[in-house]
Amino acid sequence: MKRADTEVAAATTSRLDVMNFLNEMSGNFPQAISFGSGRPTERFFDMERWIGLVPAFARHFAAGAGVPPERAMLLLAQYGRTGGVIDDLIARQVGRDEGIECERGQVIVTAGCQEAIELCMGALFQDARDVLLVKSPAYIGITGVAELHGVATAAFSCEDPEDTAGALRATVARLEAEGKRPRALYLVPDFDNPTGAVLSLGQREAVLDYCAGKGITVLEDNPYGMFRYDGERLPTMFGLDRHGCVIYLGTYSKTICPALRIGFALLPKALHGNAAASAALMTRLLQAKSLLTVNTSQVAQAIAGGLLLDQDCSLQELVAPSLALYKSNRDCMLAALDEVLSPLGAGISWNRPEGGFFLTVSLPFTFLGEDANVCARDFGVLAMPLSFFALDNAQDCRLRLAFSNVTHEQIGEGVARLGRYVAHRLAACAQPQQD
Amino acid sequence: MKRADTEVAAATTSRLDVMNFLNEMSGNFPQAISFGSGRPTERFFDMERWIGLVPAFARHFAAGAGVPPERAMLLLAQYGRTGGVIDDLIARQVGRDEGIECERGQVIVTAGCQEAIELCMGALFQDARDVLLVKSPAYIGITGVAELHGVATAAFSCEDPEDTAGALRATVARLEAEGKRPRALYLVPDFDNPTGAVLSLGQREAVLDYCAGKGITVLEDNPYGMFRYDGERLPTMFGLDRHGCVIYLGTYSKTICPALRIGFALLPKALHGNAAASAALMTRLLQAKSLLTVNTSQVAQAIAGGLLLDQDCSLQELVAPSLALYKSNRDCMLAALDEVLSPLGAGISWNRPEGGFFLTVSLPFTFLGEDANVCARDFGVLAMPLSFFALDNAQDCRLRLAFSNVTHEQIGEGVARLGRYVAHRLAACAQPQQD
Repeated sequence: MKRADTEVAAATTSRLDVMNFLNEMSGNFPQAISFGSGRPTERFFDMERWIGLVPAFARHFAAGAGVPPERAMLLLAQYGRTGGVIDDLIARQVGRDEGIECERGQVIVTAGCQEAIELCMGALFQDARDVLLVKSPAYIGITGVAELHGVATAAFSCEDPEDTAGALRATVARLEAEGKRPRALYLVPDFDNPTGAVLSLGQREAVLDYCAGKGITVLEDNPYGMFRYDGERLPTMFGLDRHGCVIYLGTYSKTICPALRIGFALLPKALHGNAAASAALMTRLLQAKSLLTVNTSQVAQAIAGGLLLDQDCSLQELVAPSLALYKSNRDCMLAALDEVLSPLGAGISWNRPEGGFFLTVSLPFTFLGEDANVCARDFGVLAMPLSFFALDNAQDCRLRLAFSNVTHEQIGEGVARLGRYVAHRLAACAQPQQD
Repeated sequence: MKRADTEVAAATTSRLDVMNFLNEMSGNFPQAISFGSGRPTERFFDMERWIGLVPAFARHFAAGAGVPPERAMLLLAQYGRTGGVIDDLIARQVGRDEGIECERGQVIVTAGCQEAIELCMGALFQDARDVLLVKSPAYIGITGVAELHGVATAAFSCEDPEDTAGALRATVARLEAEGKRPRALYLVPDFDNPTGAVLSLGQREAVLDYCAGKGITVLEDNPYGMFRYDGERLPTMFGLDRHGCVIYLGTYSKTICPALRIGFALLPKALHGNAAASAALMTRLLQAKSLLTVNTSQVAQAIAGGLLLDQDCSLQELVAPSLALYKSNRDCMLAALDEVLSPLGAGISWNRPEGGFFLTVSLPFTFLGEDANVCARDFGVLAMPLSFFALDNAQDCRLRLAFSNVTHEQIGEGVARLGRYVAHRLAACAQPQQD
């Protein structure tokens, strides 16, 4: 098997080990306040009500399939279409909520967005020279899948976000000189995991133009797009794309709930201008899905479908309470960081994300896996080293804080604990090293 | 990518194309009576009642997690354990229904059994020399996954079922002589798909002993085990195994319903005698699952869990009506075949399966994909060529009939139509060929 190849420096740890580490750390320190996991808040989940909407979806399904509603309930409990049965509702929802124009035939419903990522990786990467492009730091769900598939990954850093396309261009040029073939670029343009960053409109367009020219397919992952707290919404790259170079990856894990495991991919009508290529890609995705999970749970689809019908295919009202909560959590965390970390002196900074679930803190010392362990064990707060998401060493002094699934009280206390940990590290740095 | 390598003769068609062909054929001839699909009957599905059992599972989950029941409902809508939350109930169910002794730690819950197959293939096959062993004809879900993973497949025919271990031994010897490493053997010992055959107790033991000696892992897939219509139940290979060489693959798609997409794998406590190897395998499966589907839908698990609790972890009562229906369908189909095909002369035969969803018919002429198309289009009955499941040409004159999801009326009319098709083919065979 090929191993992940990196642009800057070899990652020392397998992505698979990192996934495990994260899971274990949460389990090992149950008493710690966790800023680790990017889970949505469960406060507004209403599964009993949502389950009650299944018969409404069954009526919708019955009308589409031309069968009586009571028969629809039986058929929904059966095996079903590989590509899913809520493709029409998804097409309408991304139309209303994301301004994306598409038809149901462009949609494949997946067992969570992670399956969509996995299917796209399998379908797009067929040649040993193919390379996946990611920004570093990058979501582990993409680099992990690449590792699992034995796909080489090339990461590019962009210290200047307004030169993302330039950094991409330089990396591609280098890869091409090495005889490699950059095949796809994975991006979270809105409220990136792990950094919380947003790709500007100008950079979206520049990246699209560049990728179109090079025949590189953009995988646009957008789990957090509906959670913007300040500023103007930007169009999705899929929406901007006039070249057919974007595959859009969506999920209802953050907008409805994770337990449904409903995600989807939207294919362009004509992949890099070629409608037959889009059709062939859809066929490949469906073939692979039929061998991975057969079809996405129709019970879960019926719940999501019932809720989409109930909400007239816009989730804005449904997410309003959690959106307000996340915004208030972000503000609470920013205020706490300002109060606790600012007095600790220079070399400490953090960003102010305009949306999403995460912010990042830069420190004047390294914060790696072992440090995160000590911080959780001895100081009672769980923060995620950004090095876990990195393919080089540039993130070794940074950490990610998730504010999506904590209370204000936990934020206050957790940041205070983090402050004590940082003060402790700073004091240790200040002291002469003893042997 | 490596391609499927076969023991006897190269398969002319990709498994992926076959999957597609099957799906399309059902869609293309909606008016045909279909003996094609091995779907369970939907007559006894009761999703509205089953959904109502979720709160009962939430109480069970709450007790296990030490949280209040109302909090359990929220947590069940969240992300959850990669390995699932109904592992305890599954361990009890296979204990009661299959006589399998195991602990919850041996269970990984998957998005349908197909995901379990996919995960096992990914985890077991790490080396280019590794070969998957299958009987020919074999379930497309295993050979298709092997093809997707670029894993070489070696098929062995066993004309004499009482010499399965012998046929296996001969194939393994040949592979070893070629420098290949037989890594795993996939089997459906009870009511095989597509043949309906049962592996005898003696052969189960002989295969186990042989595989244990060779370090070959047996993937025992058992979707139909609870549907026996005649004769004595045989112990599962997992239950018989004293060497730790069996991974058991289970599903609730046939016993509850497919739409839950709940399957599972049971690992031996000590894989080939090595407990650390079992733990390492479980870690690999969990790592890969976290990158494929993150975790199995907790809503679907809660429905299955609620029903398992409701049934005191035995599904025998739940499946009793469908078991009776399938038995009566099998008998109806056997009687119809006897009435319709017997008068057509020699060279036509079929088996009498003791359980499961399928029987096979042998004909004195070839029945390939194009023939199945003609049969569906011009004679109005859909039958599955066994060649689709074969890795050699030995199945070219056979077809599979599924009797699980049809009425007696459909069986009578469908077999009559099949009889007209067979008579037509026999007449064509008898006539001198014209150019």
